[in-house]
Amino acid sequence: MSSYTELESRFRRIGALEEAEGILHWDMSVIMPNGGAGSRAEQLAAMKLTIHELLTDPLLEDLLNDAETQSLDDIWQLANLREMRRRWQHANALDGELVEALSKSSSKCEMIWREARPKNDFAAVSDALSEVLNLVRQKAETKASTLGVSPYEALLDQFEPGTRIVDIDRLFDDLASFLPNFLDDALSRQEAAGEPLKPVGPFDLTAQQKLAAKLMEHVGFDFDHGRLDISLHPFCGGVPDDVRITTRYEEDDFAQSLMGVLHETGHAMYERGLPVEWRLQPVGQARGMALHESQSLLVEMQICRGSEFLTFAAPLMRDAFNGSGAAWAPDNMQRLQARVERGFIRVDADEVTYPAHVILRYRLERALISGEMQISDLPTAWNDGMKELLGIVPETDREGCLQDIHWFDGAFGYFPTYTMGALAAAQIYQAASGADRNIKPAISEGDFGPLMTWLRTNIHGKGSVGTTDEILTEATGLPLGTEAFKSHLKARYLN
Amino acid sequence: MSSYTELESRFRRIGALEEAEGILHWDMSVIMPNGGAGSRAEQLAAMKLTIHELLTDPLLEDLLNDAETQSLDDIWQLANLREMRRRWQHANALDGELVEALSKSSSKCEMIWREARPKNDFAAVSDALSEVLNLVRQKAETKASTLGVSPYEALLDQFEPGTRIVDIDRLFDDLASFLPNFLDDALSRQEAAGEPLKPVGPFDLTAQQKLAAKLMEHVGFDFDHGRLDISLHPFCGGVPDDVRITTRYEEDDFAQSLMGVLHETGHAMYERGLPVEWRLQPVGQARGMALHESQSLLVEMQICRGSEFLTFAAPLMRDAFNGSGAAWAPDNMQRLQARVERGFIRVDADEVTYPAHVILRYRLERALISGEMQISDLPTAWNDGMKELLGIVPETDREGCLQDIHWFDGAFGYFPTYTMGALAAAQIYQAASGADRNIKPAISEGDFGPLMTWLRTNIHGKGSVGTTDEILTEATGLPLGTEAFKSHLKARYLN
Repeated sequence: MSSYTELESRFRRIGALEEAEGILHWDMSVIMPNGGAGSRAEQLAAMKLTIHELLTDPLLEDLLNDAETQSLDDIWQLANLREMRRRWQHANALDGELVEALSKSSSKCEMIWREARPKNDFAAVSDALSEVLNLVRQKAETKASTLGVSPYEALLDQFEPGTRIVDIDRLFDDLASFLPNFLDDALSRQEAAGEPLKPVGPFDLTAQQKLAAKLMEHVGFDFDHGRLDISLHPFCGGVPDDVRITTRYEEDDFAQSLMGVLHETGHAMYERGLPVEWRLQPVGQARGMALHESQSLLVEMQICRGSEFLTFAAPLMRDAFNGSGAAWAPDNMQRLQARVERGFIRVDADEVTYPAHVILRYRLERALISGEMQISDLPTAWNDGMKELLGIVPETDREGCLQDIHWFDGAFGYFPTYTMGALAAAQIYQAASGADRNIKPAISEGDFGPLMTWLRTNIHGKGSVGTTDEILTEATGLPLGTEAFKSHLKARYLN
Repeated sequence: MSSYTELESRFRRIGALEEAEGILHWDMSVIMPNGGAGSRAEQLAAMKLTIHELLTDPLLEDLLNDAETQSLDDIWQLANLREMRRRWQHANALDGELVEALSKSSSKCEMIWREARPKNDFAAVSDALSEVLNLVRQKAETKASTLGVSPYEALLDQFEPGTRIVDIDRLFDDLASFLPNFLDDALSRQEAAGEPLKPVGPFDLTAQQKLAAKLMEHVGFDFDHGRLDISLHPFCGGVPDDVRITTRYEEDDFAQSLMGVLHETGHAMYERGLPVEWRLQPVGQARGMALHESQSLLVEMQICRGSEFLTFAAPLMRDAFNGSGAAWAPDNMQRLQARVERGFIRVDADEVTYPAHVILRYRLERALISGEMQISDLPTAWNDGMKELLGIVPETDREGCLQDIHWFDGAFGYFPTYTMGALAAAQIYQAASGADRNIKPAISEGDFGPLMTWLRTNIHGKGSVGTTDEILTEATGLPLGTEAFKSHLKARYLN
């Protein structure tokens, strides 16, 4: 057996164990009774340790070194080997002590944060957050020297491989200069058009679930390879051949859950469309969080909050809840689903203001990682940034720097992928609907088939065979940029 | 770290991975969409391989050899070490080739059986079954030489450690001589008493589920540490801190599902009651299938089909379905739940005829493993055995030797544990209700607390600290015998 073949066999096992971990995580969030938490933590720790041992086995390094001297012709095999090396680098960069210290301090900090946030008490959590930051900075520096990039880029690489600060700066600076004026214009237009009508509930929960499942099927979700369930925090979990999304229903608002379901369905379609012949291999897995988020935002933001889709879907919504009247008209529904508003909370933000939330966090976390800023400066810097980017200042840290779990849980370098995903979504949809003129007409009849065919060929089926920019360039003619996103915003909000 | 301590740490990981496997199996039977089957098989194979490697690591053998020379004072540690060695023996007895051949031939045979059974076509599956038998005999011989027992005992040891043929023969020969006359007498009594009334459905499925959950709670099931779900074949799965039982509801008969739920609740209470301080260690796990089955039969057969419990439960059943009339009277309900009948199918059998089904299979599988009998002789030998033990002969193999999955799936040596469990259930209930006079009165008020307290102390909490006979002797004063079971049958069916 060649070294490369032996590597495929070892990574196949790692992939299968990671899939098992995925199912256990899903179960924990959806099904598990509370009393099972302790034993589940033990199970997951044992899985994680086992996977870590497989990745740090000295024989694996020998195999990688040897395989890299072999001449592989197939670009998929080459990309697979490159991804194997990346997995190896991330697993081997850190010593066990640092991994354990980070895991413990993040858990502790997250627990303190859960109490500090509702009490609006930043001081209570700032020491714990400083400790997490200190350890994350150590991690970033160690990984940076292994990967040959800057510390912040080493953190980015965990979520969106190969991303460079210079690229993000270019994208985000452009957005930061475009969005403030655009937001003013969009808000004026919106005000001039008057308030849309809001359908009045209560909306039966079973009817909501049925409608969600029906629209998922229109998008292309296959319930023979997946599930829709309920959980406190909606997510897309499971594995490519058994992909499981969750939502949470509210009786007085069906649209929030429904748009959430369509968002997660976008994630699910990406997972389902990953290349079957490379299942369980590193190259067969999703490229990164930016492309992943692009697929959810493509379905939710680009399409399902747009007029083509709502022409088709508004009558289904009306009928699902036995509604009647002008509130259910597609045009009114579209205006309702694309409202713009200056707000403090990222997760409630619309697509126009969302980038400002992300750019703020990106600038702050870069300064924290580089050491230019201390945790004690965070509340003030946050509020200054909000003023600059969105023109509003939160009155409390609860609506400011305490709102997101990410940093308190040790996740630095993740935020940029949300907006990179939004940009990619616009760029991909523009390219797809240009390449196949049937895509938009089909969507206005509830048929996502042509779109999904294009996405499987050009995005989903590529797995990790190239970088995000390589995949995007091949699919859309350009690396990640802001033009398509800006055109999309202009068309939707200024037309 | 001493060798023993290091062993505990290694087995803790193995235990946690096996728990993870348990959750994945539960998911597969209850939740997983069909399309997930292929990826789940890969996940489980990777888990199994990983656990096998941990058990066959040469360092583990060194640690066992070394720990066995140390002086351990604690009887739990000693028992734990003994169970570790047993796990090691079973894992290391077979070479990989035989394990794989058995796994493949069992899967193939089981698939053929699934088609052959409805078609009543024993000839179609007999070659595949011969192949399975051939491999199982190899396994039995290899394990026999490792364990120092006979080949059939080596198979028994997988399910009920330490059981000897001579003990089973003594128990089963006694039952085989007692039951035929007893069955005649019980049937005469039953006929003389006239047919009980049957409550008429349909029985609302939600009401069935609520009633089942309510009675589970009366038995002591804690929904913070477990679940009740639906699956095609009812079972008890999950892990001790998150124990999950399943059932299947029928609209026209609530009692079958309900008695099944109570049966599985007995299994669940055993798992929940295993010693917390030995979680994930071999000694902390259930002793064997005989004691496991004793706990389900204790709850279902000894108690829930008896008059104390039904005095309490019959009115709850009536109210759950808005019933009225004589069919819902406790006495009538008790007669309904303890009907005796000569039948061909084991899984439909009552407690009086069940042992005959088991004794038949035990005699046949012993002859198959020893080589005294060939697969081609099975249909005739089956029918002869049924005639001798129950006085009836099935007209088809579908109602005869094709009915059970066990042999076709490679499971030889399992059947005896059903009847050993029935005997143990009677013996344990007799001892418990003798030791604490409050147990029976409490049950007639729906309170299983006193019984469960006794069981936790004397059975559940013992884990695998002794053999089944040691645990039984300490708890009941005697090793496994037939007297309590026979007394129970006489009291219930001839009084």
